[in-house]
Order: sequence, then C-alpha cells, then structure tokens
Amino acid sequence: MPSRPGECLIKLRMAGICGTDLQLLEGYAEFRGIPGHEFVGHVESVDSRADAVWIDKRVVGEINVGCERCDWCAIGEKEHCPRRTVVGIRGRDGAFADYVTLPASNLHEVPDSIDDRSAVFVEPLAAACRILEQVDVDEASRVAVLGDGRLGLLAAQVLRTRARDVVLLGRHERKMAVARALGVETRPSGAEDAHGFDIVVEATGSASGIVEAVELVRPRGIVVMKSTVHGEAPVATWPMVVNEVTLVGSRCGPFETAIGLLASGAVRVEPLVTSVLPLESHDQAFAEARRGLKVLFAIE
Amino acid sequence: MPSRPGECLIKLRMAGICGTDLQLLEGYAEFRGIPGHEFVGHVESVDSRADAVWIDKRVVGEINVGCERCDWCAIGEKEHCPRRTVVGIRGRDGAFADYVTLPASNLHEVPDSIDDRSAVFVEPLAAACRILEQVDVDEASRVAVLGDGRLGLLAAQVLRTRARDVVLLGRHERKMAVARALGVETRPSGAEDAHGFDIVVEATGSASGIVEAVELVRPRGIVVMKSTVHGEAPVATWPMVVNEVTLVGSRCGPFETAIGLLASGAVRVEPLVTSVLPLESHDQAFAEARRGLKVLFAIE
Repeated sequence: MPSRPGECLIKLRMAGICGTDLQLLEGYAEFRGIPGHEFVGHVESVDSRADAVWIDKRVVGEINVGCERCDWCAIGEKEHCPRRTVVGIRGRDGAFADYVTLPASNLHEVPDSIDDRSAVFVEPLAAACRILEQVDVDEASRVAVLGDGRLGLLAAQVLRTRARDVVLLGRHERKMAVARALGVETRPSGAEDAHGFDIVVEATGSASGIVEAVELVRPRGIVVMKSTVHGEAPVATWPMVVNEVTLVGSRCGPFETAIGLLASGAVRVEPLVTSVLPLESHDQAFAEARRGLKVLFAIE
Repeated sequence: MPSRPGECLIKLRMAGICGTDLQLLEGYAEFRGIPGHEFVGHVESVDSRADAVWIDKRVVGEINVGCERCDWCAIGEKEHCPRRTVVGIRGRDGAFADYVTLPASNLHEVPDSIDDRSAVFVEPLAAACRILEQVDVDEASRVAVLGDGRLGLLAAQVLRTRARDVVLLGRHERKMAVARALGVETRPSGAEDAHGFDIVVEATGSASGIVEAVELVRPRGIVVMKSTVHGEAPVATWPMVVNEVTLVGSRCGPFETAIGLLASGAVRVEPLVTSVLPLESHDQAFAEARRGLKVLFAIE
C-alpha cells in the first residue's frame, strides 16, 4: 500500500475503539470509510526524503490534517481548518486496518517506556488534557467528572494532577470500581450534588448530559463539554442564563502532554482495557466496547 | 403601604414590560405575584433612619435582594444568592403597581438628564452591559446580535461602543428599521453568515436560539446566552464540542454603567418605546409588548 503524497505510511500494531466510533455507526458525522483514530504503529515508508528520519519509528498520530493554506493552518490550529480531514472520522480512512497514512508533522514518537496497549491511549488522553488548556483548574477547584466511561476515567485522572477534590459521578458500578482502583473518588450521579462544583466535565456520551452537568455546577461555574453524540436532546437554556454558567466545548488535545503523563505514571490506563481482539472479531469488539471500557484491536 | 423592614418604599412613576414578563405568563419561574422589574420612581419613605438621605430621590433599582448571610452576599454577588428574592420574578412583588420596596443598597439615583421613559431602560441596559464584563470585546471583534427584540437592540448599541463590526440579525423588518435608525447595521438572519462571527449574542427570546447562535459563531468563538425562556428546545451538542465553542450565560449587569451610557447619549432608547399606557390597560399593554418593542406603564 502506497502512502498518500507527502505522507508517511504507518504499519499498525494496535488500535482502540472510542465512543465516537460507536457514534459513527449511529450516523454521527455521516462518515463512510474505515473508522479508528486511536492507534500505535511503525512508520514503514515515507513519500518525502525529508521524512526519512521517521522510518521504523514507533509512533502515535494527531488525527486532524489541515489544508495548510487557511488562516487556521497558518496559526497551527489544523483541528479547526474548515477543509481538514480527520483520521477515521472525516474524509480519511482510519486505523481499524493494516495501514494508515499521515503527514510526518502529525506524528509523535513513543518512548520505549510506554507499551503498545498504553500508547493507544495517547489520543484520548490528549483530548482529556485539552481541558487543562481551556479551563483554569487549581488545587482548590471542586471538580466533577460526569460519566464513568473511557473518557471520564481519563479526564478524572488528568484533573487530579491539578485539583485535590475530583469526583467521578457515574451509573455503572463495574466501571466506577475501575476508577476507584486508580485512586479516583466515585459517587453515583444524583441530585444531592446540585450546584456543588466549580467545574463539571460532561463525559456521559449522551446528548442530554449537558442538562445534568448544568444542574451540578455552581453559579458562574464551568461545564466542559466532551461528548460528541449523534442526535439531539431537549434542553432548557434558562438555567445556564440564570446561573451564568460557562460551557466550553473541548475536543483534541496536546499529544506530548499525554505522552508525558503516561511515561511518568501520573495517569494509568491498563486497568481500562476490557479486552484485546483481532480485527476479524470486529462485531464482538464493538459489542464489548458498548458495555465495557477500552477494547483494543491487536493488528498483525 | 408600609415598606418591608429595612427597606425603602418607592412610589412608582413608570415601569416597562420585558420579555421575561411575557415568559412569566407562560409559566417561567413559576412566579405568582405582581410582575414588573424595570421601573423608575421616587423614594417616599424609609424604614431605617440611616436611609433618610434617599427620601424624595428619583431612583431605579437593582432587582436581586440577597440574604446578606451567604458566601455570595459576602462578596457582593447577591444575584447568585441561593435565598435571593427578585423583584417581580421570585418571592417579591414587582413594579406593575403603585409602590415597590427595596433595600437602599439596591437603589441608584437617576440624574436629571435622563427622563423617566429612558430611566426605565436602566435595568435591561445594565443586563446588556453585563456582556462586556464577561467577554473580551475589542475594536476588531466581529460581533452578531441574534434577535431584533428589546434586548437585542440594547445589546447591539452597547457592543458598538467597543467593536467596529456589529450586526443585528433579525426577522422583523419593522424592528430592524428601528435598529438602523439607531445606526445599527442589520441583516435578515440566515445561513450565509455561518461561522462568520467571533462573538454571537443570543437574544432571540426562544429556547432554540442557542442552536442558531452556535451555527453563526466561528470555531473557538463565544456565544453569549441572554434569553430566559420557559420550556425546552431540541439541541445537538456535538457542534459546540467539535468547534470548541464557549457559551456564556449572562443575566443582570452594572447599573452605573447603564446610567452613564444613557446620560452620555452613547445608547439611545426612546425609539424603542412602542407605547405608553396606564396600568389599567395591562391586557392591551402585554398584547402590544408581544408584537412590538418596549411598552411602558405610566403610573399615576
């Protein structure tokens, strides 16, 4: 398989199923192609001699590829380029395959101390780290993460590196037990916490999560919106206005920060792995990803 | 009529109908009492000798009355006191009456240069000024105000004091003509402006205004939410996440700033007055407020 012009060809080693992949199957983003945007692999070949240094490197990859001509690309914010493609989400095949291609500028080498299973988490962990770029979190911040799924467990660990008081509010005892094993405080989500938090991270994976998050945050507090969900939910906006809540949409984040957190052990991801399956078992893999936490594909 | 303990008794001269008053009739805030929270009057009597200086002063009044014991009141943010009452909205009768009472700390004297008709606008104009306390608006900001109602026309004028490029997007030619007479650029709201603005102020008075506002704002732009509307609307949250939009709920604002803008002539409000009616004509007044801009009650 040749790489795209100017891009590197990556032989995949492992890929992870994300909530967004499950949403794509529901019709989100109207994507038609190979999904998968969390991966680790080896660079097998390159198209440009300038990229030869990448050959044989073990890499993870940022998923947005910009047009390199617009104002957003000019300031290095390719994730908002209006003509961008996105690995496995928009206009570009993804990583549930043997190979994927990306420009070298999207790649990050993975240090030996991070194994393949953990490296697959760099992309979603970077998305969790994005929160700290957007919102001031300090030691005294009272923080709730709403949702005990894959992203919730990563976000809670990331936020705990800054704030003393982080609680994960969930509905699934089995997933909350994983969170507790990682040292994260958990509580069943419920009304008793109304308006009790400075910052609420909405990671429910449900369109109606925004309503519950606004109920949890204090007046003038901040709700970080992380769920990219197909479809609509009935939302009353007046509580956001009356309580002067700030809501911040939050998407992709800094890979180097995520790699640093994995390398240092500040964030642990192995307990999130529900199962590792071959690509051929995709039906079973997606079924397990719906019920469990992170399902990985081991790619030969 | 006696004033409440510790409060000033204000003989009302004029009061204005706000979109929130129309919403109260639809069931918003489950308020049972006399509505009306935009007013001007004279202080007729006071309960505490310390407030005697206010007697006979022509005043407007901040509408939130805090408990004076909680953390919010301690930092002077009574508008978020969980036990607050709010004139004509929550636990306290309003200004569509002969008298209203308020603590002296809520009152602001109106300078002679501002007549009664204009003074009634201090409260909603302060709410428009709140935007500038919450969001950085500079000369180069591309700003849209969505909604050609009472609040939209005030917000557009306030934002124009900071930004060169402010456009009001509306649906009612008659109201947009009033805006243009005030020097505000107008356009029919439509899809051609998609993602064209740094800041969008949602002042449609409709629960679904948030959806249109998110379509208008650029990636990483800001939507200021102003509409307090009864009921829910179907909302897809993924565009807020994908475009990393920030939404900011915005409610009550600084009275002195609003008084200054009226006194200087930087904001003009007389063209917004649709009609002036006696309290007895309340049915006609509310009907005209539904179709038109600001309807005032002249109170004998």
